[in-house]
Amino acid sequence: MKIAYLGPQASFTDLAVKKAFPKSEAIPRVTIPDCIEAAIKEEVDYAVVPMENSLEGSVHITVDYLFHEADLSIAAELTSPIQQHLMVHPSNRRSVQELEKILSHPHALAQCHKFLNTTYRGTLLEQTTSTAAAAKYLSEHPEETLGAIGNELAAKVYGLEIVHENIHDFAYNHTRFIVLHKKPVKLELPASKSTQKTTLMVTLPKDRSGALHQVLSAFAWRNLNLSKIESRPLKTRLGDYFFLIDVQQDMDEVLLPGAINEMEALGCKVKIIGSYSSYLLGD
Amino acid sequence: MKIAYLGPQASFTDLAVKKAFPKSEAIPRVTIPDCIEAAIKEEVDYAVVPMENSLEGSVHITVDYLFHEADLSIAAELTSPIQQHLMVHPSNRRSVQELEKILSHPHALAQCHKFLNTTYRGTLLEQTTSTAAAAKYLSEHPEETLGAIGNELAAKVYGLEIVHENIHDFAYNHTRFIVLHKKPVKLELPASKSTQKTTLMVTLPKDRSGALHQVLSAFAWRNLNLSKIESRPLKTRLGDYFFLIDVQQDMDEVLLPGAINEMEALGCKVKIIGSYSSYLLGD
Repeated sequence: MKIAYLGPQASFTDLAVKKAFPKSEAIPRVTIPDCIEAAIKEEVDYAVVPMENSLEGSVHITVDYLFHEADLSIAAELTSPIQQHLMVHPSNRRSVQELEKILSHPHALAQCHKFLNTTYRGTLLEQTTSTAAAAKYLSEHPEETLGAIGNELAAKVYGLEIVHENIHDFAYNHTRFIVLHKKPVKLELPASKSTQKTTLMVTLPKDRSGALHQVLSAFAWRNLNLSKIESRPLKTRLGDYFFLIDVQQDMDEVLLPGAINEMEALGCKVKIIGSYSSYLLGD
Repeated sequence: MKIAYLGPQASFTDLAVKKAFPKSEAIPRVTIPDCIEAAIKEEVDYAVVPMENSLEGSVHITVDYLFHEADLSIAAELTSPIQQHLMVHPSNRRSVQELEKILSHPHALAQCHKFLNTTYRGTLLEQTTSTAAAAKYLSEHPEETLGAIGNELAAKVYGLEIVHENIHDFAYNHTRFIVLHKKPVKLELPASKSTQKTTLMVTLPKDRSGALHQVLSAFAWRNLNLSKIESRPLKTRLGDYFFLIDVQQDMDEVLLPGAINEMEALGCKVKIIGSYSSYLLGD
């Protein structure tokens, strides 16, 4: 099975793919649209891209390409803990207190802001294009006294030693990745337990405040729980929005079709992006 | 007046600051938490960071720091068009058809996906830590036949020539920046016309579907329009959320306080992040 993922090698997306699909042929792509296009053109079976709380790319790009461009379906969701570690080249293990510079992706540096501000106050920070790129640089420059922030896969791939574990500011830190496929399918993984979810994109007729309230009524009186609701600009005019809605339920025969019919009768456009299992990947 | 902004020099945030505060002393910072901290410690008067649809940093970091960490207030909002251009070193102006590589931030490469796929199919793409870093590299390597994607300020600062204008895929492409201040103030700019907005962060008591519906009722029956609603994980447990809500109205004496009282009576926690003017910056 071929899977395109948001690279480079040893990125957080790579880590999630390795955990969920240990036997697949995983192919890194440079950007999220590149991943999505590989799935549309069926160069791969699935594409795995970050959807929420990502470090290595904007979720908005994922959401917007799914709404505007791509006729792809979510086949599964992978929720993965994001754990940031400080690593050094083995030849520098005795200089951990005197690092000249610490390298990482700007989002990872931001996520470890408090740790850096206390334990490494004054140490120079340098941005790299990804956490994996920081680890790669260290492996190629053992003569420099550097640290890198990234995940355990990057430490393993590039032969580095983790010297401070879990240095991210918020203990609760997850990224949701979606597994995209050309046709609507539900991908079942042997991994751990799962919950059921359905993702909809809803465009309201006009007056947002009232119409959104009506849309939520369609879910509320059926006791359908929403785990996410987010407005996104339609990109046609300032102030026009569509809504991304995650319902904590499988597509059934009565409740969800009923809610969708009701929203359509109110003048909304509803696009079903997928009905799938959501897996929580282990540490 | 001192302003900390998300750098580097010639970033899209820098461009917005230059347009809105032409006479200020603008100080680049490496990360969004760095900018926020400069405002908290009053090392600067204001901090300007991206809030939505950003290229150069995750909005989630801004939202989460405002909710969890920072007691700052939004003093104004700047909405700026994001225009991506292809630029080259003047010595390469005759080689525009035969560029060896095109450099930019991964989000900018993603935003120009269609242009690159048609006009520069097969040309190598290389990631940089920012669009400004790509322009800087070109200015220092005139002997290499390279292109960079970035904004007009980067072209000006680094002495490059724009050879393809407005190459981003979606014509409608804006970034919202917020101007943060230690105390609740409303910053009035001479620039263009403005609209009034109030930003709230609301934590629901428990059952999301029903409670969110009630929260929206408080706005709907008062005809208070929402321009944005977004759920964000509370970071305490999977499935706990708070809501970021933008109301298209100034804080008044009756309607908004009434809605807030009603939400609090329902068991919600409401944090007012600011009541401010929103400015649309020109091209």
